[in-house]
Amino acid sequence: MSNEDIKHDDQNLVPGRRKFLNTAALAGLAGAGLSVGLSSCKQEAAPPAAAPAGAPAAPAAAAHGAAGDLNLHPAPGQLDTYYGVWSGGHSGEVRVLGLPSGREIKRVPTFNIDCMSGWGITNESKAIIGTKADGSLKYKTGDTHHIHGSYVDGTYDGKYFFVNDKIHGRIARIRGDIFECDKITEIPNIQGFHGIFPDKRDPVDQAINHTTRVFCGNEFHIPHPNDGRDADDPTKYKTLFTCVDSETMEVRWQCRVDGNMDLVATSYNGRLAAANQYNTEGGAKYEDMMSAEKDACVFFDVGRIEKAIKDGKFVTIGDSKVPVVDGTKEANKDPKTALTCYVPVPKNPHGVNASPDGKYFICSGKLSPTATVIELTKVEEFLDGKLDDVNKSIVAEVEIGLGPLHTTFDGRGNAFTTLFLDSQIVKWNIDAAIKFHAGDKNVKYVVDRIDVHYQPGHISTDMGETKEAGGQFLAVGCKFSKDRFLPVGPLHPENEQLIDIRGEKMVMLADHPVYPEPHDFVIVKRDKIKTRQVFNVDDFPNAVKDAKDSGVFREGNKVTVKLVSQAPAYSLRDFKLKKGDEVTIILTNLDKVEDLTHGFAIPKYDINFIVNPQETKSVTFKADKPGVYWCYCTHFCHALHLEMRTRMIVEK
Amino acid sequence: MSNEDIKHDDQNLVPGRRKFLNTAALAGLAGAGLSVGLSSCKQEAAPPAAAPAGAPAAPAAAAHGAAGDLNLHPAPGQLDTYYGVWSGGHSGEVRVLGLPSGREIKRVPTFNIDCMSGWGITNESKAIIGTKADGSLKYKTGDTHHIHGSYVDGTYDGKYFFVNDKIHGRIARIRGDIFECDKITEIPNIQGFHGIFPDKRDPVDQAINHTTRVFCGNEFHIPHPNDGRDADDPTKYKTLFTCVDSETMEVRWQCRVDGNMDLVATSYNGRLAAANQYNTEGGAKYEDMMSAEKDACVFFDVGRIEKAIKDGKFVTIGDSKVPVVDGTKEANKDPKTALTCYVPVPKNPHGVNASPDGKYFICSGKLSPTATVIELTKVEEFLDGKLDDVNKSIVAEVEIGLGPLHTTFDGRGNAFTTLFLDSQIVKWNIDAAIKFHAGDKNVKYVVDRIDVHYQPGHISTDMGETKEAGGQFLAVGCKFSKDRFLPVGPLHPENEQLIDIRGEKMVMLADHPVYPEPHDFVIVKRDKIKTRQVFNVDDFPNAVKDAKDSGVFREGNKVTVKLVSQAPAYSLRDFKLKKGDEVTIILTNLDKVEDLTHGFAIPKYDINFIVNPQETKSVTFKADKPGVYWCYCTHFCHALHLEMRTRMIVEK
Repeated sequence: MSNEDIKHDDQNLVPGRRKFLNTAALAGLAGAGLSVGLSSCKQEAAPPAAAPAGAPAAPAAAAHGAAGDLNLHPAPGQLDTYYGVWSGGHSGEVRVLGLPSGREIKRVPTFNIDCMSGWGITNESKAIIGTKADGSLKYKTGDTHHIHGSYVDGTYDGKYFFVNDKIHGRIARIRGDIFECDKITEIPNIQGFHGIFPDKRDPVDQAINHTTRVFCGNEFHIPHPNDGRDADDPTKYKTLFTCVDSETMEVRWQCRVDGNMDLVATSYNGRLAAANQYNTEGGAKYEDMMSAEKDACVFFDVGRIEKAIKDGKFVTIGDSKVPVVDGTKEANKDPKTALTCYVPVPKNPHGVNASPDGKYFICSGKLSPTATVIELTKVEEFLDGKLDDVNKSIVAEVEIGLGPLHTTFDGRGNAFTTLFLDSQIVKWNIDAAIKFHAGDKNVKYVVDRIDVHYQPGHISTDMGETKEAGGQFLAVGCKFSKDRFLPVGPLHPENEQLIDIRGEKMVMLADHPVYPEPHDFVIVKRDKIKTRQVFNVDDFPNAVKDAKDSGVFREGNKVTVKLVSQAPAYSLRDFKLKKGDEVTIILTNLDKVEDLTHGFAIPKYDINFIVNPQETKSVTFKADKPGVYWCYCTHFCHALHLEMRTRMIVEK
Repeated sequence: MSNEDIKHDDQNLVPGRRKFLNTAALAGLAGAGLSVGLSSCKQEAAPPAAAPAGAPAAPAAAAHGAAGDLNLHPAPGQLDTYYGVWSGGHSGEVRVLGLPSGREIKRVPTFNIDCMSGWGITNESKAIIGTKADGSLKYKTGDTHHIHGSYVDGTYDGKYFFVNDKIHGRIARIRGDIFECDKITEIPNIQGFHGIFPDKRDPVDQAINHTTRVFCGNEFHIPHPNDGRDADDPTKYKTLFTCVDSETMEVRWQCRVDGNMDLVATSYNGRLAAANQYNTEGGAKYEDMMSAEKDACVFFDVGRIEKAIKDGKFVTIGDSKVPVVDGTKEANKDPKTALTCYVPVPKNPHGVNASPDGKYFICSGKLSPTATVIELTKVEEFLDGKLDDVNKSIVAEVEIGLGPLHTTFDGRGNAFTTLFLDSQIVKWNIDAAIKFHAGDKNVKYVVDRIDVHYQPGHISTDMGETKEAGGQFLAVGCKFSKDRFLPVGPLHPENEQLIDIRGEKMVMLADHPVYPEPHDFVIVKRDKIKTRQVFNVDDFPNAVKDAKDSGVFREGNKVTVKLVSQAPAYSLRDFKLKKGDEVTIILTNLDKVEDLTHGFAIPKYDINFIVNPQETKSVTFKADKPGVYWCYCTHFCHALHLEMRTRMIVEK
């Protein structure tokens, strides 16, 4: 299973191996194959195969051994030219990178707890995350996978980024102007929420040419509702595809389907959303999940679904009031009225991606060494009763290598697919693949391969998820880094590698270690993002707008302490409480200078948070420990930062 | 207060301004001066002043505009040559960087909660962090400031790194072989624990030439004990200097002193520890904290303190059993028996650093534009009754610029001090400063200045805290980054800048954004660190060493679920619990391949953690929600990672 074992045929540099990996071979990967791949990493990987002479031409790009004008290493003070918006996997966070330098500029606490910013500590963040009846956080863990930006006219508008939580089935929204999470929604009756994608145009009103909905793929099938019933009978387990309103962040509707969904993609014309599916068998053990030779890419006719709901053709599940339509295969046999359309693809596919020209959806084989190219208009024709066989929407299904997972695009007709088992990226030409599939076996659709380090998952080019795909460079998230960085003990970083794609051949540019474990990411031209660098004090209803409004305000044992910060002091030098008080501290940072953030920590009371310029935050706690507590500024602000304190005195 | 205002005199490039900043001027910094400094950042800073011809010569280093052989940008696959071990400030964590590239290789969750690794979630991590009576975490916040490695023979042995938590007064230890926290100790009767430093040789038994103790500076003065007494009378507030055993991590003793301590340094011969002090006035408001013209650097005679404790000359405070000796000025008037020695330095100093030749301790003025050079042997002579005036231990006190905070060394006799208000680093020669101070006003002790971006705090050269100071490069933690990176909203990253110090003039190499907010850091040659990359299964007493030992073991409503992970499966495909069970899941990762980490998440039960190769972890929770819960692997492990699940069925 190591790279050295791969034999390429003369035609398309395709591994000359079994078309499908069978169950026994895959189970064995853990013991032998994958282990060999993993332990052989210290050997120099073979150079990528030479590009065949007949490969489709990429636009002129001079031979370049290094980064050329990509400015991989900005000089001190120089800015990057792209934002990378990265999911943080089961760190629960989102990250903002500068690219091409790969420098991490910000972490955006989302589903996790972050004691730097006070995320999960302040009342404002707790209201977003959600609390139990006793006021404590409902969840402190999360697993972000896929992150996508909101669209206008087929490209990013920089307004929002959406990201899922796989553990608890939630979707979060990140504001693009401040890079902070402002909404989290828990989706009912799902488990293992994997992929998301915003729509790019309204499926009902074509005049609305921007994102209004986000679609959510549900991976694990469970009883409906999941209250203890049907636990022993996996045949009764179900999955739901969910539509969330991008503005209100409320769940609009759900659609029941067969199979386990991972990734989601949407059409540029707004009509269709799609999700790759594995385990259409409905198995509860991994061998059962890959017994069938074919799974599916399921397409959703959004307009028809919303019409069905309008017509009352839905049910609800348990306590949830969300309308649920039936999108199972069995219930949608007539294409002309079908809400869904199941396009068969080789077993256990992973990843579905829409090409920037709007024409194709590409499904990666995972357990099949193939990519399947589905032509969007043909799916629409099938749904309109104009195509007799849904299989005719498959315009190519070509071998590209072992373990294909995700695909991205350069905007020049080429696709780049990660090959997990080969530890490679394969660059292939979509038109050439279609010609090959149509019968012209002389066409060489594979343009290039490059070794990556190691076991790649997601991949994304600059603006590759938009119609403005730039074709400059790509990032690839390698799940294993092994020997690529200084050793730091048993837990390794992941390796986000950067690759130049301007020429016909790919050129490896850089390794970037990242804390586990990013899944997906998007690369956004910097002019798409317009940030607000100082808050507006009026945006906070509880703001303390003047230092003279500071004070301790008591109603029985409920006490509100109003404070402002202005370097190097808080407006109260001390404040007194009584043991047993229920205390709310409201702090407004009246400093207006950009970057002049203050912190507020209370020793032994387990409180810390920051207030950015002109921002207001609050915390609520019980004053249960008498004594003197020096609340201090934790965020270096001034030459007298160390002296910036206020004494909280809790009387016995 | 902006850089443009600074006038240098002809002699030493020293700002020709008032010797001390007075109270009014400092309070005004917030409103005018600092704001001007901050808002003027978009202008190009003036180039550093030319090095004077007579500056002490640094070893030959060819002129170099770039990084030369420092390998600032390792080619893909190339390793860095140094480890950077970084505190994470009020993110509560520690970070490991590769240098000179500046890439962050690992976060080490310490005082924070980290849902990626399960820190604060697993039973093992909760035991280290500490819990309340109900089993919940005692603290979820922390504020790491200063981090230092353990020593052998005056240099790092790579065994441990120690770091403080300022919020709750705790010290943590990070194992250098696995870069994980293994111990946290809460120090009694202190608040605002700021600086730490390990000893470098045993003060009692000189044959023990490695770290055995860690010394801890206590910043905020509080009542003793802090139980509500004396709250209104700051004159009764006290601070303690604390000695912690580096192996057991138990508190050995405490020493009461006057004033608020920040940083700590230790002598290479083991006899003395020192802490800079501000607010020797004992003020409770910032104006009072800087009313006196002089504060102190306090030295601790460790051997005498431990002898006093052996002789029973100590008290205890409240419930604490830790022996506390009296190190106040009043109680230590006779130097020959004194436990402490207060060397007067200009008001509100910040930072004390020991030079790599073992001769000097350097205190930075903060509110005075000076550095004070204290000769160690003279402090010892004073304590031995051989020097009549402690002020004679001050061999230099020279003006270096505005807002001096911290100092590092190149091992060639030069010191590098951060100037917070000037936003500069000043390079100055220690011997020249001593000559200047002695009366030779022709000596030019300032060698070079360089603008940094912006407002620098800590600074450290490669191996600069050891006798092996290498003099290759330094990192400087800039507290404001403002316009140096792509804007990401009101919260800015900090800027860790890298500077080449091989030549006479400093050369700015790179900007690195970091999540707020690192304080201190050390730079360690990579051969000092020896990591274990796979755990030993026998190191975990609760390990499940064989898949056949898996199962559900019930005693009443207490249930233990034993599991192993081997890609791509857990040893149990499902397991059944009853609603109300108190469940402990023990998971051992039997995979032995380096980097083959698995995760374990339980939807809706708010659990996620990882097990590295051959590691065992456990979690305990109440099965309070009936239903089917697909526990899944959150850490990408295998081509069948998505299929790696087990069903937890909770029966009604």
